[in-house]
Amino acid sequence: MSNAPILAALCASIEPVEKRFSDLTQKRLDAKTKPRGSLGRLEDLACQLASVQRTATPSVSSKAVVVMGADHGVAEEGVSAYPQEVTAQMLLNFARGGAGINVLARHSGARVVVVDIGVAHPLPAMPEIFSQRVRAGTANFTKGPAMSLDEATRAVLVGASLASQLADSGVNLIGIGEMGIANTTASSAMTAVLTRTAVEEVTGLGTGIDSATRTRKIDVIRRAIQVNRPDAKNPMDVLHKLGGLEIAGLAGVVLGAAARQTAVVIDGFIASVAALIATRMVPAVAGYLIASHRSVEIGHRVVLVELGRMPLLDLGLRLGEGTGAALAMNLIDAAVAVLSEMATFESAGVTDAGR
Amino acid sequence: MSNAPILAALCASIEPVEKRFSDLTQKRLDAKTKPRGSLGRLEDLACQLASVQRTATPSVSSKAVVVMGADHGVAEEGVSAYPQEVTAQMLLNFARGGAGINVLARHSGARVVVVDIGVAHPLPAMPEIFSQRVRAGTANFTKGPAMSLDEATRAVLVGASLASQLADSGVNLIGIGEMGIANTTASSAMTAVLTRTAVEEVTGLGTGIDSATRTRKIDVIRRAIQVNRPDAKNPMDVLHKLGGLEIAGLAGVVLGAAARQTAVVIDGFIASVAALIATRMVPAVAGYLIASHRSVEIGHRVVLVELGRMPLLDLGLRLGEGTGAALAMNLIDAAVAVLSEMATFESAGVTDAGR
Repeated sequence: MSNAPILAALCASIEPVEKRFSDLTQKRLDAKTKPRGSLGRLEDLACQLASVQRTATPSVSSKAVVVMGADHGVAEEGVSAYPQEVTAQMLLNFARGGAGINVLARHSGARVVVVDIGVAHPLPAMPEIFSQRVRAGTANFTKGPAMSLDEATRAVLVGASLASQLADSGVNLIGIGEMGIANTTASSAMTAVLTRTAVEEVTGLGTGIDSATRTRKIDVIRRAIQVNRPDAKNPMDVLHKLGGLEIAGLAGVVLGAAARQTAVVIDGFIASVAALIATRMVPAVAGYLIASHRSVEIGHRVVLVELGRMPLLDLGLRLGEGTGAALAMNLIDAAVAVLSEMATFESAGVTDAGR
Repeated sequence: MSNAPILAALCASIEPVEKRFSDLTQKRLDAKTKPRGSLGRLEDLACQLASVQRTATPSVSSKAVVVMGADHGVAEEGVSAYPQEVTAQMLLNFARGGAGINVLARHSGARVVVVDIGVAHPLPAMPEIFSQRVRAGTANFTKGPAMSLDEATRAVLVGASLASQLADSGVNLIGIGEMGIANTTASSAMTAVLTRTAVEEVTGLGTGIDSATRTRKIDVIRRAIQVNRPDAKNPMDVLHKLGGLEIAGLAGVVLGAAARQTAVVIDGFIASVAALIATRMVPAVAGYLIASHRSVEIGHRVVLVELGRMPLLDLGLRLGEGTGAALAMNLIDAAVAVLSEMATFESAGVTDAGR
């Protein structure tokens, strides 16, 4: 039985954001005691949230960062600085609260939702890890598709369902992050195909490989594209042939969040590729996306341009896990605070000489 | 009686930051469960704080944003979009908690310290405004010095004394912000002289003037430089002839904070010019400075390059008041949280394949 009709129905249910609420919000901001527009992108953020939530009083009262973990068969080609076992080890670290994303999400008042959507090594059952394993890691995509089309579809639906559950529980801002040894290789491959860019222009150093390993990584990606011949115009074709389970799952979170009129904060390169897949399926999704940061990974720049989103931060981050998204949530909170807490020229008795 | 010897003693008491604590901190960060260096500028921030506080376990447990307000005689030349009365009105707004800086400082857990160091219109006595009026605004500097050298020195010492009091009360991170109608005119004039840059290259639109007003502003600044002939090599000469009381006061906060081994978060253009004056007086001050953001004001870029500080944020802000500094404090908090809360490879049982 195919899951394709369920995915098609999900996509069909997504409506564009409503700009009139953004305009209303800009009017509210223009009455505040500051020169018009002088809070720059904080004002844009407040307006975007208004258009997403269909209100002139948007709220980010409940925030979550979804971190999906999965393994990649292509790791056996020696494209990463770390062994595959690290994916499982890091999911346990997330569950225990000791990783970068735990610290930064706590700092931003966001909960971390850890999902095993396809880690190769089995993980113990524990309440802190949401087990939604579609398969135990992808296949080595230099030898054929990373996963079947149906597996990719199921992974997308896992993410969409989770986003919907979070919305049900009152979450009104969702960050997306990932963990998966070798997942920059999958992301670079997908970016090259989806944006029709030369492989070497979108392939970086990942967690810190040397230049010989990068040369091998580029060769691996070229072979994967030759073997699989993905159709650049068909995002699900690219996703199942060159993607990863966590990338598929996060694309699903984006689609599910958009369907529930909830803004999504994208993390780095891999999460952005997931968002790109979602926008290729439903272009209206773009209005729901907030790009948190520009990572060091060279492919990220290309994906951000393609998404048409300007990142909020540029701090030389390259950790993933949703860490950039968690940091950016602080700025989004600040934007909402400005809108809800600042005095107006009238209430404060300040002369308004602005236009 | 001259205050110059007191200022000279303050400057002589400032010692450079100690890099060995930065190196120790980088070692601590390298043991955390993440690829080496993958938290980019957050790691740099943690290391800088360590070098400032002379410890491998830096803390930002108590934060304050000092907002100094003063008026500028040059406002009578019609260089601002707002009338001079707005300076006093906004100080009252700060005191009541309704301004942008109040909202953003609250969001970052920082207290706001409002200082009247020379507002033209008298303000009512109130506990929320620290009254340290050196004079009721500067003179119009197109006709002579903005203030006397002794007045400038006294304003610097007001700031230094305040920084020292804050350090005494346990504050370990100080942001600097300002309010003063026409103070971008003073800042552009000082920047042109201190960095030997053409006036038109460092003169922007302030709170939102039109292009005819900007042309007048440039002319006003050129005349001020011609009339006063400031000595670019003598920061106090530039400060008293072309500066403002709040700019002098904030330069003093920077010097006072550095003397007390306390990091300073610079806000936008005007606060950065104050920091530049301080570094010209004592170059070692630079190690204490954290540049919060790059503002829209074109002169800010020039000052940041001169300071050798890369801003953390670039969000199109142009409000001043310390708003950018308050936002950046969130990132600084995050950097300290990473250092103190993240698990190590050893404690989390994660394979460390990094160099």
